[in-house]
Amino acid sequence: MRQLLLISLFSVFIFAAATPAQAQDKPQPWLPSLITETPQQGFELAVKLARKGVTSTQSNKEVLFRERDKYSNDAEHLMMASQVIALHYQTIAAANNYWR
Amino acid sequence: MRQLLLISLFSVFIFAAATPAQAQDKPQPWLPSLITETPQQGFELAVKLARKGVTSTQSNKEVLFRERDKYSNDAEHLMMASQVIALHYQTIAAANNYWR
Amino acid sequence: MRQLLLISLFSVFIFAAATPAQAQDKPQPWLPSLITETPQQGFELAVKLARKGVTSTQSNKEVLFRERDKYSNDAEHLMMASQVIALHYQTIAAANNYWR
Amino acid sequence: MRQLLLISLFSVFIFAAATPAQAQDKPQPWLPSLITETPQQGFELAVKLARKGVTSTQSNKEVLFRERDKYSNDAEHLMMASQVIALHYQTIAAANNYWR
Amino acid sequence: MRQLLLISLFSVFIFAAATPAQAQDKPQPWLPSLITETPQQGFELAVKLARKGVTSTQSNKEVLFRERDKYSNDAEHLMMASQVIALHYQTIAAANNYWR
Amino acid sequence: MRQLLLISLFSVFIFAAATPAQAQDKPQPWLPSLITETPQQGFELAVKLARKGVTSTQSNKEVLFRERDKYSNDAEHLMMASQVIALHYQTIAAANNYWR
Repeated sequence: MRQLLLISLFSVFIFAAATPAQAQDKPQPWLPSLITETPQQGFELAVKLARKGVTSTQSNKEVLFRERDKYSNDAEHLMMASQVIALHYQTIAAANNYWR
Repeated sequence: MRQLLLISLFSVFIFAAATPAQAQDKPQPWLPSLITETPQQGFELAVKLARKGVTSTQSNKEVLFRERDKYSNDAEHLMMASQVIALHYQTIAAANNYWR
Repeated sequence: MRQLLLISLFSVFIFAAATPAQAQDKPQPWLPSLITETPQQGFELAVKLARKGVTSTQSNKEVLFRERDKYSNDAEHLMMASQVIALHYQTIAAANNYWR
Repeated sequence: MRQLLLISLFSVFIFAAATPAQAQDKPQPWLPSLITETPQQGFELAVKLARKGVTSTQSNKEVLFRERDKYSNDAEHLMMASQVIALHYQTIAAANNYWR
Repeated sequence: MRQLLLISLFSVFIFAAATPAQAQDKPQPWLPSLITETPQQGFELAVKLARKGVTSTQSNKEVLFRERDKYSNDAEHLMMASQVIALHYQTIAAANNYWR
Repeated sequence: MRQLLLISLFSVFIFAAATPAQAQDKPQPWLPSLITETPQQGFELAVKLARKGVTSTQSNKEVLFRERDKYSNDAEHLMMASQVIALHYQTIAAANNYWR
């Protein structure tokens, strides 16, 4: 069973996203712009992009929930999240000309 | 019990932050600007952003405390923190035109 | 058997890609441009590049499938994927002048 | 006992640094500038910033010493240090216009 | 025996590359330029640089082959490769002014 | 004994490098410039900087040699080296205006 889930997880990452992008955009554009009013809102957008990076790799919520019991090193997990946020914040800050 | 905490932790990361950003900004803007007077104050701001990246993923202090006993590889943890700080310092230094 | 697979995997990474690039481009250029219409389509392209980085290291689907049962730390795996996406998104956002 | 130390360590990272930055700057500014005379001095400054990223997360020397016996994967530790140095060197080199 | 190999591996990383660069360049320059015709060829060059980063640390093929049986976490290995490719692609894309 | 080595290792990282930089520069400047003639020589310089990042954290060769038997995950080690090289190559390529 667990093996089956892992197969799905892996397959999703490598072979997924074949449907045309435009068809996906129509329902609800989740990222209309990188421009934000304040540095703080930019940071919140970075957090959003970091999460989106995870769900775009594995969008099946059922699999996500079943995988959760393998989380054994959460300090590292939280640190990695902070790192991805930092990378996206670099992009967003540049997009906003650092809110200067 | 531990499993329950992990479920919360994971859920928070993936599905949280649905409340509007503006409503959160009102009480106390924690990041009004990326501009600092000196390179050293910029570094301190980078440390602050690195921490914020962790707490924005998991804001529940109770969960944070319960998770702490799983920290077993702290040298790596400290190094990862230093890495996130370095990424944010890149952003802040650019925002301040490197304090030239 | 497993050893044999690992040998293949390793050999592919180190010694592969000797065939001329132009010959590979002809059939179907998978990356004609970094320019996208919206920030969101740019993010989808970043996800695509992150996947391509995996398959260009190991293109043998049979090996990829056999390797899947070694995935034991998927939270970290998903985080790493999110990190690679963030790096590519930096590139794509810059290419599109941040869709300003 | 070990648990207690970890609690301190974690608390320091998340809740510390509440004292005003200016009060800390007065005694001895450790980072007056990112400008250096040569590329090599810039590298040495990058090493310094990487260390500072560690000590600003955990400034308690007693805790740092007690934690040391958990260092079991030092090659990785050294590599991670080299990575943080590389990130800071990017910042410093840009600040110095690459000493061109 | 294994210990001996590790000693070699480590020594190569730290003390190698003492021969003059120009002497090495003569036989066959493997990197004449970062400029490519298309974004896709740029990606292929990024894959090449990522591999070169590995072989320039350990060029002894015999050691490389003997080390292969220690590969136990290949998903992470593939992800790390994808990450290095992403970093080099940032460089190459900038060099080509993003093929705009 | 092993503990003693680890203490030294840790101490070196956190408290070392107190001697003035200029005094160290005199004997033999190992990094006079980031400018290279070709992209390939720039890559070789990136490899050199990655190694320097390791030795500047731990310059004691005796400790380095004794630590070597803990290397158990060399694929990851090689990948991390490739990653650090990629980061330094970004810096060097920018310094050389991408050899355009």
